[in-house]
Amino acid sequence: MAALFGGIEAGGTKFNCIVASSPETILAETRFPTTTPAETIGRVIDFFHGYPSLGSIGIACFGPLDLNPASPKFGFITSTPKANWADTDITGWIKRELDVPVGIDTDVNAAAMAEGIWGSCQGLDSFVYFTIGTGVGGGAVVNGKPLHGLVHPEMGHIVLPHDHQRDPFPGNCPFHGDCFEGMASGPAINKRWGQSAETLPADHPAWDLEADYISQAMQSIVCTLSPQRIVLGGGVMQQPHLFPLIRQKTQSFLHGYVQAPQIMSNIDQFIVPPGLGTHSGMMGAIALAQQAK
Amino acid sequence: MAALFGGIEAGGTKFNCIVASSPETILAETRFPTTTPAETIGRVIDFFHGYPSLGSIGIACFGPLDLNPASPKFGFITSTPKANWADTDITGWIKRELDVPVGIDTDVNAAAMAEGIWGSCQGLDSFVYFTIGTGVGGGAVVNGKPLHGLVHPEMGHIVLPHDHQRDPFPGNCPFHGDCFEGMASGPAINKRWGQSAETLPADHPAWDLEADYISQAMQSIVCTLSPQRIVLGGGVMQQPHLFPLIRQKTQSFLHGYVQAPQIMSNIDQFIVPPGLGTHSGMMGAIALAQQAK
Repeated sequence: MAALFGGIEAGGTKFNCIVASSPETILAETRFPTTTPAETIGRVIDFFHGYPSLGSIGIACFGPLDLNPASPKFGFITSTPKANWADTDITGWIKRELDVPVGIDTDVNAAAMAEGIWGSCQGLDSFVYFTIGTGVGGGAVVNGKPLHGLVHPEMGHIVLPHDHQRDPFPGNCPFHGDCFEGMASGPAINKRWGQSAETLPADHPAWDLEADYISQAMQSIVCTLSPQRIVLGGGVMQQPHLFPLIRQKTQSFLHGYVQAPQIMSNIDQFIVPPGLGTHSGMMGAIALAQQAK
Repeated sequence: MAALFGGIEAGGTKFNCIVASSPETILAETRFPTTTPAETIGRVIDFFHGYPSLGSIGIACFGPLDLNPASPKFGFITSTPKANWADTDITGWIKRELDVPVGIDTDVNAAAMAEGIWGSCQGLDSFVYFTIGTGVGGGAVVNGKPLHGLVHPEMGHIVLPHDHQRDPFPGNCPFHGDCFEGMASGPAINKRWGQSAETLPADHPAWDLEADYISQAMQSIVCTLSPQRIVLGGGVMQQPHLFPLIRQKTQSFLHGYVQAPQIMSNIDQFIVPPGLGTHSGMMGAIALAQQAK
């Protein structure tokens, strides 16, 4: 029998917990709203107490996180504006209660890892995963390892060109106004057009503008990280007509500068939806569990 | 005696060749203009023929380059607009003539490596080096290794906000118009203000605008690569008053979002000039030689 792992997709709104060995072998699953740390982590621990044979647990977590192994606060959620969750030692808490190795990374780094193992990025060593939904976040695998550096990437907060005449919406990021997340998240679409993204028809001008912002962000990502592939997931990307638009616009914005066949002629395989559908984050937690020591 | 290496800083305007074992031990040096590949590489070979004891040679090269070890064109300069240089096997040519191992990477990745070994980034494993001069280029070391991915970074071509009312200059990048390089390179300053950067006084409004563009680019770099340090080199950065401006503006644009002490309170040690002065690229070539097999 394949080894069993616990996975926690820890989001600001809800927590998903699973017991699995692969995307095809999910033995158990539960989800509950994110309330206080004590109550929420308590429910996590209760759930996993039912599976005493787990080898390890992974947490694909909302952030910001301290991921520096040398830091006394390694594995903590640090300065989140989410009430009660700042400075929470989620990793240590679960480790102490369940007495198994626990791995942690950002939800998007974990999702990128899972796409590399089971999804759209198998066989590659450098790639990027974006979620474009309630927020915008990006994770990356570089040379086979998740990208950390000083803290961890916060790719939703890169700068974008903003033509105020075409789009007077000032952006809704509380930190940066019109950064990528401020212009292109689901709530930004909602505020700009006065209706939610799901209710906008495919021929609404919202989508051309949205594709422009996402594609300009992709220009910066291609020029900075030089990924072998970009996976776009999240609620906003559930609109299938967005993919062809973003591919064509990214190619057009890059303007032949990066002459890789993946961009010049095979962009359909360069900018892709998640191979794991909406399970990239959850399976990312399993990937983290597999590496936890 | 320390092992001797050959280094070639191969630029679009000139080539520098050195024989060295460290920044303190440069035994010989020559420089000549970049003309045709045959003539220029011929002079490289002639120079190094005088040093038959070299263990290996490194090339810190203008690009774009094919750096995929599995590619039949590994080590080639690929699609450069520079006349006669497209599709040039610079690595194979030098290897065949001098019969030593030859390493190659972009000039800016090499410069980043050198700053990690001998310069401003010693002891770190993830950092970025920018040159802001005739062009704008960025290289990176991630987890101790230069960043390649699909091709290699082209960080001079990330997108920036552009307030056309404040700055009607359309940008001078032939590919993207108002990308980072198009707005912030030396020639962009020259064209915008009608005089060259070196002749603009420190209180000229050019510098506040220049610092804005560079700092917005730094916001995107921090949010994408999460470097432990950023080194800014190149001709434009020879203006010492730019550093305090860029540090203050980068902090202000990030707006407390990335809560690392390096950014919040020690930004003087986060955005720094090259420890190797103007020799980062040249010593990068030596770093590449040391790793060449």
